[in-house]
Amino acid sequence: MELNIRQLVERGERYFPDNTVVSRLPDGGRFSYTWREAVQRARRLASRLDALGIQPGERVATLAWNTYRHLELYFAVPCTGRVLHTVNLRLADEHIVYILNHCEDAAVFVDPDLLPVLERIVSQVRTVRHWIVLADKLPPTTLPNAIAYEDLITEGDPTFQFHEIPENTPAVMCYTSATTGMPKGVSYSHRVIYLHSLTAALGDALDVRERDTFLAMVPMFHANAWGLPYACAAMGAQLVLPGERPNAAALLDLVEREKVTFLAAAVSVGIDVIAELKRKRRDLSSLRAIMLGGSATPASVMEYFLAEFNLPIYTAWGSTELAPLATCAHIPRGMLDQPPQTHIPTRVRQGIALPGAEVKVLDDSGKEIPWDDQAVGEAYVRAPWSATEYYLDPERSAEGFKDGWWRSGDMASVNAQGVLRLVDRAKDLIKSGGEWISSVDLENALVAHPGVCEAAVVGLPDEKWVERPCAYYVCEPGSSPTPAELRAWLEPKFARWWLPAFYIAIDAIPKTGVGKINKRALRERVVDDARLASAG
Amino acid sequence: MELNIRQLVERGERYFPDNTVVSRLPDGGRFSYTWREAVQRARRLASRLDALGIQPGERVATLAWNTYRHLELYFAVPCTGRVLHTVNLRLADEHIVYILNHCEDAAVFVDPDLLPVLERIVSQVRTVRHWIVLADKLPPTTLPNAIAYEDLITEGDPTFQFHEIPENTPAVMCYTSATTGMPKGVSYSHRVIYLHSLTAALGDALDVRERDTFLAMVPMFHANAWGLPYACAAMGAQLVLPGERPNAAALLDLVEREKVTFLAAAVSVGIDVIAELKRKRRDLSSLRAIMLGGSATPASVMEYFLAEFNLPIYTAWGSTELAPLATCAHIPRGMLDQPPQTHIPTRVRQGIALPGAEVKVLDDSGKEIPWDDQAVGEAYVRAPWSATEYYLDPERSAEGFKDGWWRSGDMASVNAQGVLRLVDRAKDLIKSGGEWISSVDLENALVAHPGVCEAAVVGLPDEKWVERPCAYYVCEPGSSPTPAELRAWLEPKFARWWLPAFYIAIDAIPKTGVGKINKRALRERVVDDARLASAG
Repeated sequence: MELNIRQLVERGERYFPDNTVVSRLPDGGRFSYTWREAVQRARRLASRLDALGIQPGERVATLAWNTYRHLELYFAVPCTGRVLHTVNLRLADEHIVYILNHCEDAAVFVDPDLLPVLERIVSQVRTVRHWIVLADKLPPTTLPNAIAYEDLITEGDPTFQFHEIPENTPAVMCYTSATTGMPKGVSYSHRVIYLHSLTAALGDALDVRERDTFLAMVPMFHANAWGLPYACAAMGAQLVLPGERPNAAALLDLVEREKVTFLAAAVSVGIDVIAELKRKRRDLSSLRAIMLGGSATPASVMEYFLAEFNLPIYTAWGSTELAPLATCAHIPRGMLDQPPQTHIPTRVRQGIALPGAEVKVLDDSGKEIPWDDQAVGEAYVRAPWSATEYYLDPERSAEGFKDGWWRSGDMASVNAQGVLRLVDRAKDLIKSGGEWISSVDLENALVAHPGVCEAAVVGLPDEKWVERPCAYYVCEPGSSPTPAELRAWLEPKFARWWLPAFYIAIDAIPKTGVGKINKRALRERVVDDARLASAG
Repeated sequence: MELNIRQLVERGERYFPDNTVVSRLPDGGRFSYTWREAVQRARRLASRLDALGIQPGERVATLAWNTYRHLELYFAVPCTGRVLHTVNLRLADEHIVYILNHCEDAAVFVDPDLLPVLERIVSQVRTVRHWIVLADKLPPTTLPNAIAYEDLITEGDPTFQFHEIPENTPAVMCYTSATTGMPKGVSYSHRVIYLHSLTAALGDALDVRERDTFLAMVPMFHANAWGLPYACAAMGAQLVLPGERPNAAALLDLVEREKVTFLAAAVSVGIDVIAELKRKRRDLSSLRAIMLGGSATPASVMEYFLAEFNLPIYTAWGSTELAPLATCAHIPRGMLDQPPQTHIPTRVRQGIALPGAEVKVLDDSGKEIPWDDQAVGEAYVRAPWSATEYYLDPERSAEGFKDGWWRSGDMASVNAQGVLRLVDRAKDLIKSGGEWISSVDLENALVAHPGVCEAAVVGLPDEKWVERPCAYYVCEPGSSPTPAELRAWLEPKFARWWLPAFYIAIDAIPKTGVGKINKRALRERVVDDARLASAG
């Protein structure tokens, strides 16, 4: 029997029809319906994709937040043999044009507040035949022949039967931003989504159970929101979707009101949440854990949530190429009885490979590095749910994959228990006089300073040393630590030659479309900034 | 990437090398080693299968208890592309001859105490080229050219690399006893074992985690011990194997000494355990749950464990054709806060389909029965891990499978929440005057009587009513309820025409090779027994 998204979706509908999906509305209001209603509406939509003349195998794009309508698209599009292409709404216009054309999308479903993006680029988009606005009624728009989502599905058939689809059929696509050049597409088959969802749900992974209420802050436009929509449907767990432009306050209000048990978010969101909690405390007692990913979680963030809310933070590591999860923090049985503070050094690491996945860290000669937590190599991953190529891109596929393994571009160490620790992105490691300096280690130490809420360290070109670290930092409200204070803070923790040459306070750390620190942007300005800093 | 048993086995070895596997020795002693050692010894064995000249795809049989050496065979045989054929050691000689020949086994690995079985039949076995005794030294035996397991593997290579195998390659085989005729073979591919293991490990299924210590009382010679050896390896959980001829006392000693967290056993074992606990109480505080399967668990058994040990019993339902799990009891979120006593009516049912599996209950016309807990139909199952045929047996395959669904032969009802309740085996339902009587319902009610420890109800041919129920029962030690007392016990619970015509006390209920009530044996004697009872 083939592995299909259908099986996941229909299990929630069949056995937990009354469990709810809650979606935050653009006006901050609460939309709530049941799994039965969610899947019935997905069936309505599925029946109407035929009417639009979208063929099996054609791509259907979404430019949308985490909402109930986006969820319906997650189900209806793949379960009828079409391919759901979730477009990262934070990408630059030129990248969105590129991926809509490269993917040859037949239709785009767009949230009303994102219409301006499409209106700016519509003339450059070649293959899209239908523009559907995710709204009750069609708002004013210059998109040609646009229709409203509710008008589309109102005539749909709520008893429409999803197809049984060969498992290697593409189901979902996502483009990942590349360091250089245009985004690269990754295609997930039904089989990939099925295997990833079940694996992510395991007790020693995210532990998705029917009794849970998951808040998927991780965006549905990026790597399937970590597979949570599908895993929650399969287990019948309740799902909370934070809607349009969620901020930390909205997120915390949802946790409190919906009695969320598990929150999944990017590390940067975790940091924003702390600032908001300091402003206004909330009741977080329903939460059993927060999972942060996308970059390394500073120990100070973990210490805050443990001290203030007795909440463990889980770290996960993955990427678009992995649908997205590869590893997950794990507290071994021998440590379970020890105080949770002692778990933090384990939790800040990226963890161990999920069941079925394999991780190896190779040195330059292609040999596995020793598990001594000292040696550094590049992490390679393969899993039954990992990609083996980029969509229609043989050249970059050849760079990014090797013998069925994905080259992560992440430099890592491994401790004696096999637990991965990301040291840095290969391209972000700072080369100093023949040695390597980890920008991530310096950033974590800076963020641990009580007056610093965010930090980013990049290499400053240097004639003598090749590069010297240069630190950017954002002050906590009401604080303003000086460069000398920060240097004094770092001195006891690092070798002298690791210490940044400059400490530059800025209002905000620039971020990429997926919320990671945009080091490219910092590298472009670091020479000028360093000149100003030495002048000042 | 292909789904392989290798990934499951190597994860335990890689990340939890020091977690232990404990195996009870024939003398009652304790053997303990680590996952690292277990898999290293499996690698030694794997390297020696080449030396024996066993080809990829050939079948390697085991006639063995749940022991560490059997575990090594579970890993080494499939991970080198051979097929592990676990022979049910409780089968009659003629059936063992049949399946060894039908399966064309190339080798048999046998526990020393089971040598007499093979010595009786060796002259009739056609394809076996190697007889390996699971022992340190070769015991006296008339098997030709027999060798000792430890002699075989001592020269083996502990660094032998398991093969990467196409996932649809057969990995394991098991024969299921048929109602009529010879046993039927079922083949499990690597993919089937992988998917079943991960699904069984889910939080809302058996919840296999590294922190657990699983006692697999369910035999490794029957339906993969519910997949526990593979699931425990993948999660790195500790595993306890009860060895040769385990009884309830040995089992309870293991639970107490090894601090077992989860015990999986047949329902009949659960009943034996109660008798043993009444004889000598044990500390069961390490257990979080007991899972009973193979037949319906009486409510009285659940009440006992809850009242005496605050322990929930989980019910699972499955079969050899399903590798074996199809459904599992589930307490929905709305009931979790209610007292555990109130969960028993849910826990005695067979539960809901595991994620990925689908169960439908069809009436005679092939329509799904209503979910009203009244209507009865035959349960059909399909899953990505279910068989679709019997091995080299097209005729019985056509009877047992239909459009990719397995016909269970079990009659069931479904309640409004979709929860399955087995009413009876199709062939065990008693036909009385155009109506159906469930033998299982009567048995459960009889077992709930304080003076009855086991009961079995079969149909007695009757000229007027077609059949009338006839009850066999085993008295609790020190009790001897009379037929009149039992009739009075049942009267308030059932319609008058459901009440058994006879109540016959016997010393033991006959069981099949897999520990289920052998109703065929009872039907063969019921006419004579009823005549005696009416005479007496």
